[in-house]
Formats: sequence, C-alpha cells, structure tokens
Amino acid sequence: MQNVEIIAVGSELLGVQRLDTNSLWLTDRLNQLGVEVVQKCVVGDDRVRLTAELKMALERTGVVILSGGLGPTEDDVTRDAVAAAVGRELVFSQTVCDSIEERFRKFGRKMAEINKRQAYVIDGAKVLENARGTAPGQWFENGAGRIIVLLPGPPHELKHVFTTAVEPRLMKLIPPKAIRALFFRVSGMGESDLDALISPIYKKYENPVTTILAGAGDIEVHLRARCDTALEAEALLNEVGPPIEELLGDRIYSRTGETMEEICGGLLRERGSRLCVAESATGGLLGSRITSVAGSSDYFDGGFLTYSDRMKSELLGVDAALLHEHTAVSEPVAIAMAEGARRRTGSSYALSITGEAGPESGSGQPVGVFYVGFASDAGSFAKRLQFPGDRARLRQFATQSALDILRRTILGLGQASTWAK
Amino acid sequence: MQNVEIIAVGSELLGVQRLDTNSLWLTDRLNQLGVEVVQKCVVGDDRVRLTAELKMALERTGVVILSGGLGPTEDDVTRDAVAAAVGRELVFSQTVCDSIEERFRKFGRKMAEINKRQAYVIDGAKVLENARGTAPGQWFENGAGRIIVLLPGPPHELKHVFTTAVEPRLMKLIPPKAIRALFFRVSGMGESDLDALISPIYKKYENPVTTILAGAGDIEVHLRARCDTALEAEALLNEVGPPIEELLGDRIYSRTGETMEEICGGLLRERGSRLCVAESATGGLLGSRITSVAGSSDYFDGGFLTYSDRMKSELLGVDAALLHEHTAVSEPVAIAMAEGARRRTGSSYALSITGEAGPESGSGQPVGVFYVGFASDAGSFAKRLQFPGDRARLRQFATQSALDILRRTILGLGQASTWAK
Repeated sequence: MQNVEIIAVGSELLGVQRLDTNSLWLTDRLNQLGVEVVQKCVVGDDRVRLTAELKMALERTGVVILSGGLGPTEDDVTRDAVAAAVGRELVFSQTVCDSIEERFRKFGRKMAEINKRQAYVIDGAKVLENARGTAPGQWFENGAGRIIVLLPGPPHELKHVFTTAVEPRLMKLIPPKAIRALFFRVSGMGESDLDALISPIYKKYENPVTTILAGAGDIEVHLRARCDTALEAEALLNEVGPPIEELLGDRIYSRTGETMEEICGGLLRERGSRLCVAESATGGLLGSRITSVAGSSDYFDGGFLTYSDRMKSELLGVDAALLHEHTAVSEPVAIAMAEGARRRTGSSYALSITGEAGPESGSGQPVGVFYVGFASDAGSFAKRLQFPGDRARLRQFATQSALDILRRTILGLGQASTWAK
Repeated sequence: MQNVEIIAVGSELLGVQRLDTNSLWLTDRLNQLGVEVVQKCVVGDDRVRLTAELKMALERTGVVILSGGLGPTEDDVTRDAVAAAVGRELVFSQTVCDSIEERFRKFGRKMAEINKRQAYVIDGAKVLENARGTAPGQWFENGAGRIIVLLPGPPHELKHVFTTAVEPRLMKLIPPKAIRALFFRVSGMGESDLDALISPIYKKYENPVTTILAGAGDIEVHLRARCDTALEAEALLNEVGPPIEELLGDRIYSRTGETMEEICGGLLRERGSRLCVAESATGGLLGSRITSVAGSSDYFDGGFLTYSDRMKSELLGVDAALLHEHTAVSEPVAIAMAEGARRRTGSSYALSITGEAGPESGSGQPVGVFYVGFASDAGSFAKRLQFPGDRARLRQFATQSALDILRRTILGLGQASTWAK
C-alpha cells in the first residue's frame, strides 16, 4: 500500500467560505509514513454521491481516508455510504453506545436519542476510539487489501483518532518507504525560461518528482524522491539535485523556504548594514514587504513615497530638469531617487523603484517598465526591467526584483536577471 | 443545467502547503448564477487519473470546470486529459500561437519553443481569450449537453477568463431562476459584535441566505434571495435588508464591493483633496494599499516611512523630547507624525500610523495597540486602537482603520469604531 485518497464529507465544504484543511494535516502525516496522497475530493452530505465516489476511489486507489459526516444528524451520511459502497450492513454496537452515553454523563449532560446513530458500525469494521468527541472512527478492511478509514471532521478529534488509532495500523501495513525532498526558491527569470533550462535534467527522472510553482518573479522548484530506504532516496536527490542547482546558480535565493525579504533582512543584519527605500510606482509595497518581517527595525531605517514629480524633487532633491528631460520613469531619476533617499537617511544602502504600473502610462514608457535604483558608499546604478501582468502583479514583480538586486549586490554577484531589458 | 463539479489540477495542490482556493471564488460566482457546486476534486499532474476523473464527472454531473494544468511544461496535462476524456484530438491553433507570441513581444521578450504547447486546442472547443497570461481557456461542449471548461490556474488569470468568457456562456444555458443579492462592506467592528447585532434579524429567514465573511477590520455581509421571479426575490430583500442596514448604519462603507482604499480615493477625488501618509509600524502598507488603486496619483502625494525614532525626528520633525517622554507608540507622536508629513508635502490631509505589530513590544504598549493620527487645515487628532491577531493581521487592521478614520472625517461622521480603546 502506497497511495491513498482523501475524501472530505460535508456540504459546508462546498460553499464559499470553507476549505477542507484537514487534508493538509493528514497529507503531512501520511507523507511521513511514505504514503502518497494521489487524489482529494470534497463531497456534500449526499449519500448517493458519496457511495459512488467511494466505489470509484476503492477501485482506482484502494485506500480511502474519509473525514466528516459522522455526527448524529440526518445529513451525516458517511457511515451509510461506506456500508453501501462495500456491501455490508450497519450494526448497532451497545459498547459504542455506552461509551457515548458515558461521555455525556461525564460532562453532566444526558445523551439525546439521535446520538444513537453514532453507535452504528459497519459490519466487520474496527471501532477507533475517540476520546475527544462522541463520534468514534472506523477502520474497514476487506479481504482484497482495500481499506476505508472513517474519521470525525472536527480537526482536534480527527488528529487525535488518526494519531492514536490509524497511524499504528498503517505502519503495520506499509512497506517501509522513505521520502526525501529538495527545494529551491528562484528569482530573476520567468517560468518558461527556467523550465527550458532545467527540464532536460528533471525529465529524465520519474523519481524524484519535480514540481515548479511560479509567482511574480518568484519560482519554487520542488524535488521529491521516494524510495525503499532513506539512503536510496538521498542518493537519488544527490544525483538529480546538484546539476539543477548548478544551472540555476545564484538565482537560487533560498533553500529552506524563506521569502526574499527575509533573505535580504538576514544579509543586512549579518553585516550590520541598514537600508532605506524611495518608492514611486510601488507606493509603499517595498517598505511593506521589508517590514512584514519581525525584527526588521534591526536593519530598516525607513523611506520616502514620492508618487508625484513634485515629491521626488521636494522630498528627495531630484533635479526638476532631470525629471523634465528623462521623465520620472528613467535610469537617471531612479539613481537620483536612491541617492537622495540615502543622503537624507544616512543608511548604508538605498533602493528606489520608479515605473509604469498601469493601466495607463504617464511617461511614454510601456506599462510594465520599471527602473530599480541602488545607492551605497561604493556608488550608484539603476537597472531597467520589464515584466508582464496587471497592476498588482507588476508591483509584486518590481519589489521582488528590487530586493533581488539588493541581495545580489550585497553578495557581490552580477545583475543577471532575464527581466532586464 | 444547475449542478457543476470543479476539478483543480496540480500536484502541488496535493502537498502539505497549498489548497485549491480558486474553487471558493468560482463557487461564489457560480452560486450567483444559480448554479450549485456538488463535488470538488484535486488531481495531480497525472494524465491517466485526470482523464478517468473527468469521464466520471461528466457522467455523474455533466458540467465540469477545471483550473490549472494549462502551462507550457510537460507536467501541464489538462489539455491532453480532456481531449482523451471526450475522445477528441488536440489541434494546433496558429491564431492562439500568434497571440501568445504577440504577448511575449509586447513585453520585449521572445516566445520560448515550449510555449507552443499552449496553442493546442481540443477539436471542437472554443478558445477563451486570456488577456492576463499566455494560457487561453477553452470551452468544450458535446452534443449531449456535457460541458467542460478549462481555466488557467493563476487566480488573476482564472478570474479574468471566467468573468469575461465563461459567465456570459453559462448565463445563456441556465434556466432563469431569479437571484437578487444585497451586499455590505462594514468596518469598525468585530465579527462577533456584528453577528450579535444582526443575527436576530437574519436568523428568522432561510431565504435570503445571509453570509458573513470577516477579514481584518473588514466584514462582508451578503444576503442572497433565490426565487422563481425577480419580483419575489426583490420583495424578500426589501423585507430583510433595510433593518440590517439600519443597525449597521454608517459602518457600512460600500454597497457595491469597492475596497476601503477605493472608497477613500473616490472621496478625495470628488473633493479635489490630496493625501499624504507617515507610517511607522505598517512600513509602507498604507501607501501600498492607497496606490494599489489605478489613478491614485490624482489624490495621493506620497509620504514617509519612519521606522525608527531617529527617522521620525529627522524626516518629520517629531520632537525628540516627545518621543522620549511618550514613546513612539503614543497619541502625541501620532499627531506630530501626521502634522510633520503634511507640513512637508503640503497635502490637504495626512494620515499617520504608529503601533506595536509584534511579536515583541518596544514601547511598553501591548502588542496590537496602534495610534492613527490625522492632520488637516481644520486641526489634528489621534485615535488609540487595539486589535487581535498576528503581525500581518495587525498591520492590515491598522491600515484599514486609518482609511476608515479618513473616510469618516471627510464625511463628517463621528469616530465610533469599536476597536477604539
């Protein structure tokens, strides 16, 4: 047994407010046992649909973990549906009924008649005790290695029953499998460029599985190896990981999941350096990202939001003639903004952003063009960048690139972004 | 047609970090059309599994909306799987290819060879244009009323394609049920206070359905009446809506869905007034929210990020003695920040924020305490506010409240927030 499906039961999980979050926790625990979740499903309180889905899931995957639908009311259909799917009866268990009654008594209450519904057990199933609630879990195994696990929906009950009663049973059944993972966060290139670069390597392997997730200027590369032993899994990762790592090179900014603002913060703190910003088109988003990190006062001084030309001149001392000649979206203005900000704050470094976030352009530059300026003791420069997307995405791209320019400068790397134009 | 299934495609959605959140948005839009989501599923980047699931979903429900798996890489399997499930070929579309190429050109880049994979269309499907990304959506309808809709996975692309191309097509197919909705956005009170206030009214009715969605300082109240005729639905809303509206009063800041920053922007523009900001604990988030609105240069001048005491003195002229005596998280400092910012920019209004965003307090004030300062020709004031939550939530609360204070001041309303302490 290596693959499972998770089915969450409950009409409330098909509305606009709630997601099935139990499956995240279950997936984590299952992965640690070497078990893969290959499909997830949400079904409402609908006996017919749930029965059909269960039959399919048993057929295609063989092991199904259900959460929810074990309550005492009419719309709690999980017990019924499982019994129907596996062709067994529901049997009333006096033992279960007694323990539900006992639980009510303990809290000074009397068990309602409807709670007796929770004492019905699928013929042949093991009852999984639930010390945190009235609905016990159930474990049903037929002769042919098919398994259905019924878990209560409330997260604290589900976790309790899974940990105490399901994990030990699964561990006996699973051939010991080991999962090892590698993870990179990459900036400075687009998703298709990255894929063109590394797919010749990862495509040669079905194991490890490679997944690529793209945000605005921020791509995650996941490699996950699954083998019989930890040694084999590690060996696989050691074969596939390093060549990918070498191709991505210093565009990898994190191997442990930190955000770009956390990485930059760490670099500044280590060196005792301080940063200020001057933002035009991003209007505070860069500062907001930097200060979203707890403890950022250790290295962030502050900055200037200079949304108009007048503010660029008055707050940062950008020469009006420069603005007139080059427009606000230009290399010399980006440099003058960074230098002006640094002069006023005395910070070690200044980052500036000016650009066209759209939907319309005011400078004559196309929407999507940004200049990031940088100033330090060692001098100043600006880079021209061009991104795709709408206003929100462009602003995200611009701030991500500005932080990446800071990172690369502090680390003494070249400025090799493929966004540069 | 009234029931649909949603299938989210992507192995990353079967891991421990991510959930399919697109389905919440889709469900909301579908519900508003009178369409019910009866099953949701997540399938990995697995052509065989996806094909099988699609066949089942078409059989049991008939209409399936897919998100994701339309990218240019090998593990983007949605096009293939749908073609296999409905027994059609994939056909290369030169028109789609050209428009992808054009998009790359527009952003000054060259289309990579693999992007051609995104130009394959299921034989017989309509291409749904995607102005926000390279992957177009597709709409496939077979003779027997079965429909499959393919949408790109990135939320901003999915929303765009659904709104512009899918909704109009669905509306033509759905038997006319009249749905009428009322909607309020509310600020200045917590979710449980709001519920205690209005639940005595809405709990009396199953139709309209009332939904309350709470963000940080921002609550949405939805009332949805679904009847055979528009007249009936309107009559129902006219019965339930007004008493709720009266209880919420001027805490309702929007009836049409605008964000608080859009509402404030509109008020400033109408009056020809201009705004500047001075931010400490929020580090740019307030400016970022204000400038996230297109056209905000009409009313936003800019501002100051003064993260340290030194910056508050040097950039805004806050008296060092004041900082020493009251700490940076105090009413007099919030006022001095707003006044200092306004003096330097000459804006009509200045908003300032100073506070303890945590996780630790530097001022002796509890984490969660903020002061919002306001300065104008008519004078200055500051309000003390206290919010619950982590760093990100506190910063969201603080900026929302600052904007609400601006709104209430411009409109001449009292400052009646229940967050004030």
